[in-house]
Amino acid sequence: MCASQENSSNSNSESNDANENSVSRPNSPIPAITSAEEILENYGANFKILECNSQVAELLTIIRDKNTTRSDFKFYADRLIRLVIEESLNQLPYSDCSVETPTGAIYEGLKYRSGNCGVSIIRSGEAMEQGLRDCCRSIRIGKILVESDSDTHVARVVYARFPDDIARRQVLLMYPIMSTGNTAVNAVNVLKEHGVPESSIILSNLFCTPIAAKTVVTAFPKLKILTSELHPVAPNHFGQKYFGTD
Amino acid sequence: MCASQENSSNSNSESNDANENSVSRPNSPIPAITSAEEILENYGANFKILECNSQVAELLTIIRDKNTTRSDFKFYADRLIRLVIEESLNQLPYSDCSVETPTGAIYEGLKYRSGNCGVSIIRSGEAMEQGLRDCCRSIRIGKILVESDSDTHVARVVYARFPDDIARRQVLLMYPIMSTGNTAVNAVNVLKEHGVPESSIILSNLFCTPIAAKTVVTAFPKLKILTSELHPVAPNHFGQKYFGTD
Amino acid sequence: MCASQENSSNSNSESNDANENSVSRPNSPIPAITSAEEILENYGANFKILECNSQVAELLTIIRDKNTTRSDFKFYADRLIRLVIEESLNQLPYSDCSVETPTGAIYEGLKYRSGNCGVSIIRSGEAMEQGLRDCCRSIRIGKILVESDSDTHVARVVYARFPDDIARRQVLLMYPIMSTGNTAVNAVNVLKEHGVPESSIILSNLFCTPIAAKTVVTAFPKLKILTSELHPVAPNHFGQKYFGTD
Amino acid sequence: MCASQENSSNSNSESNDANENSVSRPNSPIPAITSAEEILENYGANFKILECNSQVAELLTIIRDKNTTRSDFKFYADRLIRLVIEESLNQLPYSDCSVETPTGAIYEGLKYRSGNCGVSIIRSGEAMEQGLRDCCRSIRIGKILVESDSDTHVARVVYARFPDDIARRQVLLMYPIMSTGNTAVNAVNVLKEHGVPESSIILSNLFCTPIAAKTVVTAFPKLKILTSELHPVAPNHFGQKYFGTD
Repeated sequence: MCASQENSSNSNSESNDANENSVSRPNSPIPAITSAEEILENYGANFKILECNSQVAELLTIIRDKNTTRSDFKFYADRLIRLVIEESLNQLPYSDCSVETPTGAIYEGLKYRSGNCGVSIIRSGEAMEQGLRDCCRSIRIGKILVESDSDTHVARVVYARFPDDIARRQVLLMYPIMSTGNTAVNAVNVLKEHGVPESSIILSNLFCTPIAAKTVVTAFPKLKILTSELHPVAPNHFGQKYFGTD
Repeated sequence: MCASQENSSNSNSESNDANENSVSRPNSPIPAITSAEEILENYGANFKILECNSQVAELLTIIRDKNTTRSDFKFYADRLIRLVIEESLNQLPYSDCSVETPTGAIYEGLKYRSGNCGVSIIRSGEAMEQGLRDCCRSIRIGKILVESDSDTHVARVVYARFPDDIARRQVLLMYPIMSTGNTAVNAVNVLKEHGVPESSIILSNLFCTPIAAKTVVTAFPKLKILTSELHPVAPNHFGQKYFGTD
Repeated sequence: MCASQENSSNSNSESNDANENSVSRPNSPIPAITSAEEILENYGANFKILECNSQVAELLTIIRDKNTTRSDFKFYADRLIRLVIEESLNQLPYSDCSVETPTGAIYEGLKYRSGNCGVSIIRSGEAMEQGLRDCCRSIRIGKILVESDSDTHVARVVYARFPDDIARRQVLLMYPIMSTGNTAVNAVNVLKEHGVPESSIILSNLFCTPIAAKTVVTAFPKLKILTSELHPVAPNHFGQKYFGTD
Repeated sequence: MCASQENSSNSNSESNDANENSVSRPNSPIPAITSAEEILENYGANFKILECNSQVAELLTIIRDKNTTRSDFKFYADRLIRLVIEESLNQLPYSDCSVETPTGAIYEGLKYRSGNCGVSIIRSGEAMEQGLRDCCRSIRIGKILVESDSDTHVARVVYARFPDDIARRQVLLMYPIMSTGNTAVNAVNVLKEHGVPESSIILSNLFCTPIAAKTVVTAFPKLKILTSELHPVAPNHFGQKYFGTD
């Protein structure tokens, strides 16, 4: 349920996302889950999939189900987002530290380095902002809007707001649905133009197609990517259903 | 940081919890983490520890640190609680199911069986109620108050409110700090008296001493237990700091 | 909808709350709203009713409706609770202050005095804790459990946890349903025994009968009371429906 | 604190919002509060200011204070937003209804008509989305991005996403800071182009200058406007401080 082998069916379906084209597989059963070895071999060590336990599988199922109400869709998407954000934060650099407990004992622990921020890709990425805020109180969250010309397919950045010192920060780039990977590639390029090193970016994603995964890891081998499902069909209705708008 | 070998120091410190006595180890470093094999051997297959990744280690560190402000304490405790609740829900029974996606494809997924509820042990267990509600919309949450006679140490149930059909439900019993395990044992006994099978109870816990773990798994071999740290010293200031009261 | 004249029907119905007896009026229409003058005359200046605008009226209607689902019930009860908490906080003492704005201007404003806390009466009062936390970050929240002997009707305090310096604090006492007022009277007495002056207590309530209002204002003329509806019938199913337990 | 007379000082300060120019009044005290009569006379019956009780005054003070931390700023801004959203929802059309209570009584209440939605103006308006969601579960929320040419000052709509049936809905247009009113005017024009009647739009705002108020009510006499403070200086740092970005 959480990862599946690439599949040859490739009839195009309409996408809700300007830069993304999904691959639909009407009524075909989902193939066996790709092994960790295959994922490592195909996408490298920086591409990670959230451990697919039964809770995650249930959340994916509810989000996929066309009969899920909008209210439930948002509730369960938010739960999945929270898990992906937690695991994304887990990729951040940390260092050892010692603290003193109330009873005077020394506790050997960990602390994260400060200087993180979030950047959401408008529009579906904005669905992940609250999950990040719920984990990192008062974290700075920038955003970016990329649109592609409907004729030339050339993407351009329409709007961007970042923390002014973003070049010195670790960046959690949030974008839940990747069908082709083009939008994410454009967004990462903008971050790099603003001086953020590729290795300082973690791309937090919910649903990723094998094509998108290949596109992104090929373009940015040092980028870290975390998703909750690798599957030939991305749920392109995500933003529309989550926000209730076109 | 998340699990440590039992340790011989055993001077008693004052506890905030009527039935719990903590073992303090002033200024002694924390020993090496107990291996998964040792945990399995000592506490059985139903005793599980949340995977101690760097995020979890950081949360544990913040909660342990005596210099953490109350506001931060609550914020980070709530994050740890959420992770423990998610992993506890992961222990619930489920079954396979197929759903149809908006594009007409069939998605092979999972669904949980209905009929779960929560029960919090007053007082510190109540800190975990919101985390459960944030995962399970409108789940029924009962509660139980156990107090022990200060002379005889005999525990008695002062107050209990449960869903009326609790005997037919899976029960998430919430109690964050276990120093001796006595309070949890009393609460499980009350649930059993109300007809809940031992195997239908999942005890969600944050901090557990080896003594408490041994006590509870010995008393109830079919009970499932999930904790985030097995450590000789439980942070007995938890409830006081979380709620800001005696 | 938000306040109504006292009504002569007084057949007793079963109550879910040990110390409260409700007055049921099967199928009788609700009488006209009591005027502000009548309320002042009957209950004094310290008894206040939340302004009954159309939002509040809608929330009251949803909570009253027996066909409301548990999920909706909790959602809309939480909204009403938030409004009552905000208005209760509005009763706290404050002082004038001047602050400097980012452009260097002086802004003449207000600030509240520090040293507030919450106390919830178990069990229904606990439904109001989250609303208070959402308004006052990391506020200390104590709790109290009062039970009455089923034969003698003598009430006794079974359990109480307060901030240690509660005598010097303003106290928001939370209890949503008052049918007879006995439970609230007992709780206020306990606070007074702990040294809290009557005038430092604000009783936050959602539904209050005229009998309960009279009982409480007579017992404690200096206590401040805020409710959202004065009505002969209190929705005694509140706690049961909110928490989903007996 | 919540409303003040227009003031003659008008030196321009830099604004964070493309279409808004603020009027700064370094170190000048704030003049007396404008009376309800003056507001009605100057801005008409559709322009409303949230009742300025002491809670609201405190929230305004914290938001104005340049020494407020980002974490506190967001927390208290969210509280003010919630109050403004509640009062905005209060402007929606409703009708009488009767419901049956659990004891069989008839309760005469109110219900709102369905078919509402939210639209936030990027970027600061997005700060109000969560407050709306917390009041209206799974409400549809569209958004709009307006930018003005830095040379010609001609505004254009860069991005817009609405519910497809927005013309038949009541629309809560969210934009917290109005210095000139230009951005809001552009956004309302876009909504009207999408078929939304002026009288179906409620503009939810936190801080409004007299100039902006005049501009908007003159352009759209049937539009309903709700703000929490009418003041010659709008806190133009709002979006920057709330989101932590440029």
